[in-house]
Amino acid sequence: MISSALRHADPESALAHDDHEALRLWLRLFTTTTMVERVVDSTLKREFGSSLPRFDLLAQLHRAPDGLRMGELSERILVTNGNVTWLVAALEREGFVKRRPDAADRRATVVRLTATGRRHFESMAQAHEALIADLFAGLSPVERRSLHGALGSLKARFRPSEDVR
Amino acid sequence: MISSALRHADPESALAHDDHEALRLWLRLFTTTTMVERVVDSTLKREFGSSLPRFDLLAQLHRAPDGLRMGELSERILVTNGNVTWLVAALEREGFVKRRPDAADRRATVVRLTATGRRHFESMAQAHEALIADLFAGLSPVERRSLHGALGSLKARFRPSEDVR
Repeated sequence: MISSALRHADPESALAHDDHEALRLWLRLFTTTTMVERVVDSTLKREFGSSLPRFDLLAQLHRAPDGLRMGELSERILVTNGNVTWLVAALEREGFVKRRPDAADRRATVVRLTATGRRHFESMAQAHEALIADLFAGLSPVERRSLHGALGSLKARFRPSEDVR
Repeated sequence: MISSALRHADPESALAHDDHEALRLWLRLFTTTTMVERVVDSTLKREFGSSLPRFDLLAQLHRAPDGLRMGELSERILVTNGNVTWLVAALEREGFVKRRPDAADRRATVVRLTATGRRHFESMAQAHEALIADLFAGLSPVERRSLHGALGSLKARFRPSEDVR
């Protein structure tokens, strides 16, 4: 997408050189992230019959031992644009999560991990960490530090008041 | 997702410090990219009644003046996981693209930009470039170079034979 925009940018437009540099940087940032996501997703599929959206959903529940309301779960998910209700139903059929009415508000539904779901998530999380470590192993310590710093500067531009992780 | 995996990593696990460092780096890379994507998407929605997947699709067609077969279009799209057929149908109703049977193979459908679609894309591409330039304006020249370099090292790990853009 960005690649196309770049290649077809009007050479006579008033855009300064810096604009194109930013666009190239964004293209590289975007494609690199997409590559990592795809490798993670296909590894989770191959080794666990799972996916990145499923892993993400289970991770949110793993952080919330008392469970999460469906609405909270949707808000916390980073990856999925898909249907959370559908995903939860599938995970329940497989025994990884359990839905029950909220004790405080019977109209609301709370989702939590089952013991099986917890074990399933934890083995995926371990494989996920090892995979990420392997993928990033080609970066030198200097590159890691500079990548961390530059991304921090970029993030700070978005939400100056938010804690930059 | 990564955040959760990190916070709940077993402190007694055998994972080396480097693994957690890579995971933190991946979390930051992922969240930063997601933030940029969301701002781009919402800007395209607000200013053009469009979206990132629509922009991406139009960008691919903009690069292919003779049009693309539906299959080629699906393969080239970077962003969309959605239904390309559905997206093309919507863009055709709005007058931005046109479908016709492929001259070489009547069973195949070729999609191309209309003159209206071309103008629409070009004004979005210009706004998109300006937005990206603004978002990246907080990075110093040193940070830009080091980000570009570090992402290049990371990309090279995936597809050593591919041209690193």
